Amino acid sequence: MKPLGPIPAGFETLDGELSIGGRSASSLVEEAGRTPLFVYSRDRLDARIAELRAALPERIGINYAIKANPFAPVVEHMAKLVDGFDIASGGELELAQSVGLDMAKVSFAGPGKRDEELMAAIRAGVTLNSESAGEVDRALGLAEWLGMTPRIALRVNPSFELRGSGMKMGGGAKPFGIDEEQVPAIARKVIESGAEWRGLHIFTGSQALSADAIIETQGNVLALADRLAGEIGAPLPKLNMGGGFGIPYFHGDEPLDLAAVGAAMTQKVASLPDSLAETELCLELGRYLVGEAGVYLTRIVDRKESHGTTYLVTDGGLHHQLAASGNFGTVVRRNYPVAIANRFDAQPEEEVYVVGCLCTPLDRLADGAHLPRADVGDFVAVFCAGAYGASASPSAFLGQGPAEEMLV
Amino acid sequence: MKPLGPIPAGFETLDGELSIGGRSASSLVEEAGRTPLFVYSRDRLDARIAELRAALPERIGINYAIKANPFAPVVEHMAKLVDGFDIASGGELELAQSVGLDMAKVSFAGPGKRDEELMAAIRAGVTLNSESAGEVDRALGLAEWLGMTPRIALRVNPSFELRGSGMKMGGGAKPFGIDEEQVPAIARKVIESGAEWRGLHIFTGSQALSADAIIETQGNVLALADRLAGEIGAPLPKLNMGGGFGIPYFHGDEPLDLAAVGAAMTQKVASLPDSLAETELCLELGRYLVGEAGVYLTRIVDRKESHGTTYLVTDGGLHHQLAASGNFGTVVRRNYPVAIANRFDAQPEEEVYVVGCLCTPLDRLADGAHLPRADVGDFVAVFCAGAYGASASPSAFLGQGPAEEMLV
Repeated sequence: MKPLGPIPAGFETLDGELSIGGRSASSLVEEAGRTPLFVYSRDRLDARIAELRAALPERIGINYAIKANPFAPVVEHMAKLVDGFDIASGGELELAQSVGLDMAKVSFAGPGKRDEELMAAIRAGVTLNSESAGEVDRALGLAEWLGMTPRIALRVNPSFELRGSGMKMGGGAKPFGIDEEQVPAIARKVIESGAEWRGLHIFTGSQALSADAIIETQGNVLALADRLAGEIGAPLPKLNMGGGFGIPYFHGDEPLDLAAVGAAMTQKVASLPDSLAETELCLELGRYLVGEAGVYLTRIVDRKESHGTTYLVTDGGLHHQLAASGNFGTVVRRNYPVAIANRFDAQPEEEVYVVGCLCTPLDRLADGAHLPRADVGDFVAVFCAGAYGASASPSAFLGQGPAEEMLV
Repeated sequence: MKPLGPIPAGFETLDGELSIGGRSASSLVEEAGRTPLFVYSRDRLDARIAELRAALPERIGINYAIKANPFAPVVEHMAKLVDGFDIASGGELELAQSVGLDMAKVSFAGPGKRDEELMAAIRAGVTLNSESAGEVDRALGLAEWLGMTPRIALRVNPSFELRGSGMKMGGGAKPFGIDEEQVPAIARKVIESGAEWRGLHIFTGSQALSADAIIETQGNVLALADRLAGEIGAPLPKLNMGGGFGIPYFHGDEPLDLAAVGAAMTQKVASLPDSLAETELCLELGRYLVGEAGVYLTRIVDRKESHGTTYLVTDGGLHHQLAASGNFGTVVRRNYPVAIANRFDAQPEEEVYVVGCLCTPLDRLADGAHLPRADVGDFVAVFCAGAYGASASPSAFLGQGPAEEMLV
């Protein structure tokens, strides 16, 4: 028996079934017309933002990193809740434009921006979080050619990292951002060029559950920004402090202590150095905002025994849930939170292996899971499916195609 | 410095550039209109099939597993070369129909076939490689409802595995196929139902480079088929012996000794047991047929230094090359074969890290690679990109979208 991850808060039972946004899993599947299906809950998105607003000082804005979940209705809903958006490609820029986001609140990071993407972003008035001296030169040249004033911030590769983060994006040699010591000269060049100087972006890592590590890193970020502002010799209009707030996926994971992070931030913004007194501060969050708000629903198409092991074979799989299958940046596979959606209040009574429909041993959704009895036609729910699910999985694999998605 | 994998045979230099199908990399990019670009070579596909035909006894047919590369022009080209096809989903069935494959030569394996997929396959006359007693019951019921005679084979979960294979699909409890000991009763049920009995599918693993292991497994497959035919009490119209032939991806990998495999198979088919005397035999190959015929071409959009490390940032990445990035079924990342496509005859002169354009540290194409000097605008080629590249990667990740594909 292997433990399952913790089911996020806010998912209740209705008529014995998992309910999402006040509606039963089976009624959601009926409305969607098919499985597999991602369901995202407005209520859970609202609740998460409310928690953040309550914990954080007013001074700190919240940006949504669209890459975590680019489903258009989710992005549109987030537009009512957050202060800005981060995009990572020309494709995400088109999405941002198509749902009518305010481009003055959008910034674009990414180490491999093509010329076409830079031009589209400059035309739209998006802030470029520039990742290298070469990219700054290209952006300035393209803006001149377009006859436009580009909005340019610099992404810094800090010499410190976010301790305990799932993905480290600072500390030592990195393809992301500009090494600290190169930043002042490049920033001065941007300012002297006549571009609109937008400040700094310091992103150190993601998926950290330790409040202490996040607090320590935020202190480092502010100190670095202060020092760089001094060396640049100009105030920072904006400072994107990065994010890194993680969510619990696995057995034993403890949720981030948001109150502690909020208290520390409140203290810090009360005693900002002069160089940052007028600076617009924001956090950039993706997974933390949407990850726990999504559930992946899939239908059991076979139940079989092999050498004493029971398999529940579903019509979903790693083509929509690459990370849950254990094949995306993980060394040891562990179980995400999983449940039998239409028997959500039933007691576990057997050990089963839940697999996807793909013809590969990589396609695992839960190993040795203790679950209520389930059979063909029942629904398996995989939780924590709101971020990096639908868009971060190989949906064309084995000719399967994308899952349905809905926001309720 | 970390070694690169071996560049497959058949890729020459033309005017200093990598040539594919007799055309230079830059002219191919020009024709496609953009990068990233997958180029598949007819010539390499033809050569691989010719090698197989020369090595294998005539008695052994070759099936192409479409999942390895479902690009329609590749599938159409393979139709001229192989004896049958294997599909893994309703989506692949639609593809097979759209390119006009002979459905009598198509079989459908996969542990999670939905009712709609079973019905579509039965209607089309495709052979079902049934994966469980439950699936057989569903197929028989649906065929009756449709008023059609289904073509049914059984996929066996053998008690042995393919030693040294990258993906083990036999030996012990598995979600794939029917445990050996359950096969005879289910086969008799199929035959008694009036369905068209199509025999057995025994697939034990994939990506094996050891001829000895493959020869041993083929011996086990034939012995098992003989024993099961006896226990079923009816001859096997067909036996799909599986595949498992691997290709070298990494430094130190030795190509499969095809001559040894072919010699052993020739010997075996010369002394088949009576039960298999009339049986149609085939191998099911995917990666081995197409993997080395494909090259992924991507353009360098930035060259940067960070703390003494040189990064070449490309406009491609793990969204098209998940396996090459080291994030698909691999524990330790190793380098695929990689080259600077437009300086294919130049000597290596520096150590670089080649990364993709995605804003994640997972997006690596080559670590510590010894390559000729390259800069913005040059092309990086990733070899062994013909199988499980475009379709097995999360192309929507970060809003990037699919790569171009062409067959030359």
